[in-house]
Amino acid sequence: MANSSSGDSMVNRLVRIIEAFDADHRSLSAAELARRADLPSSTTYRIVEDLLGESLLERHGQRLRLGNRLWELVSRGSPVLGLREAALPFMEDVQSVVGHHTALGVLDGNDVLYIERIGSNEMTTNIAQVARRLPAHGTSTGLVLTAFATAEVQEAFLRRRLPALTDTTITDPAELRRVFAEIRRTGHCVMPGLIVPESTGVAVPVFDRAGTAVAGLSVIIPRHGGPVATSVTALRTASRGISRALGWHRPLGDAVRRP
Amino acid sequence: MANSSSGDSMVNRLVRIIEAFDADHRSLSAAELARRADLPSSTTYRIVEDLLGESLLERHGQRLRLGNRLWELVSRGSPVLGLREAALPFMEDVQSVVGHHTALGVLDGNDVLYIERIGSNEMTTNIAQVARRLPAHGTSTGLVLTAFATAEVQEAFLRRRLPALTDTTITDPAELRRVFAEIRRTGHCVMPGLIVPESTGVAVPVFDRAGTAVAGLSVIIPRHGGPVATSVTALRTASRGISRALGWHRPLGDAVRRP
Repeated sequence: MANSSSGDSMVNRLVRIIEAFDADHRSLSAAELARRADLPSSTTYRIVEDLLGESLLERHGQRLRLGNRLWELVSRGSPVLGLREAALPFMEDVQSVVGHHTALGVLDGNDVLYIERIGSNEMTTNIAQVARRLPAHGTSTGLVLTAFATAEVQEAFLRRRLPALTDTTITDPAELRRVFAEIRRTGHCVMPGLIVPESTGVAVPVFDRAGTAVAGLSVIIPRHGGPVATSVTALRTASRGISRALGWHRPLGDAVRRP
Repeated sequence: MANSSSGDSMVNRLVRIIEAFDADHRSLSAAELARRADLPSSTTYRIVEDLLGESLLERHGQRLRLGNRLWELVSRGSPVLGLREAALPFMEDVQSVVGHHTALGVLDGNDVLYIERIGSNEMTTNIAQVARRLPAHGTSTGLVLTAFATAEVQEAFLRRRLPALTDTTITDPAELRRVFAEIRRTGHCVMPGLIVPESTGVAVPVFDRAGTAVAGLSVIIPRHGGPVATSVTALRTASRGISRALGWHRPLGDAVRRP
């Protein structure tokens, strides 16, 4: 694809333009857009015209917004949509039984990317937001997904120098190996204060029809006095339901003993 | 932006590539992708390489999928995310009280684009799926949103020749004007069998902080013996909650009497 004189590809320039919009900047003027995308105005305006032509951007007065068409295009074909549609009813069950934030996340590089979250207005601090990332080693979901990932992904994870995020973040590779073995043995992960000192994350893997741990289902409960046992049971129950909705037919006990 | 010899822009070629993925084609080989996008293989492979470089596509063995990064990028900045996050808890309330499919849709051109749906496994046929479209004149949501749209949008709607989708689809402009006036007067819309003969759609508008009807909240109930009055009350109650979550502070009665 044709590259600009600065060497970045057209796709890269498009990414920078779309990336300029986020939850705090859902509408931008063309000048703000060029500045946030760090692109020359002329380049920005040219791309904006093409994006408007395809309804990927929308003009509202003098402001630009990401078009509904862009959301539609990406959502329709994304694996994320199938996963969250299968999971949502079961997440409601968990939220109803446990009474705390329930989240669904996938492993993406070194992060957990949260694709769904429900629950609100109670005590527990929950920093997992939809379409946001948290470092995998700082979340119960990230540890569960790494514990059930391929040996290759797991070794790459253990080779990284992991920053301590709170007093209880586990960063020692030998200790992490023990944690992964325990998660694989029990099928769940309970981690107090990995990122937020006053919260405990409880997570279980969600397996797809091929038996791959494609997502992690979690609740965030108060670190002191939170319903750990209830959470584990509710999550394990819901996870089986989601896996079944994804086409899993073999006994899940087998999967929990993998790899 | 540089156009190819066939005159379509780079953005257009990207759209065709992303559009090749949908709910039935979440993973494609490069050859399938080129065929579905109707682009030369060489063009497709070049764009695919750039998309892989930005993690907007992911390679799984010999297959390509839309990357989680693409979903994240678009979701984070899209107005759709804020709307569905505000609405989801209230949609659960409606689903729980009414016991039928509850959907949230926005007007996009001549269509309703559904951005959220909850509920499942009961009698009513519901063809509104997330990230799918239905013709606006064939849905209670579309009629509600058009009734509360600007005069300009409404006149453009009435100038179109609307196809009859079932025996009860309203296509006559004079009759539609009466329907719109009635929707504005009552603040809701009850429409039997517009697309699916055995279902009735009930919808209300959701207003944002500026008092604009940004979305329609609906339930699909059985046409014969469905809980119409309960649905209207639950939807009106939930819609106020969503509007408040979106920052609306003035009495909603005012909005219902607009425009």
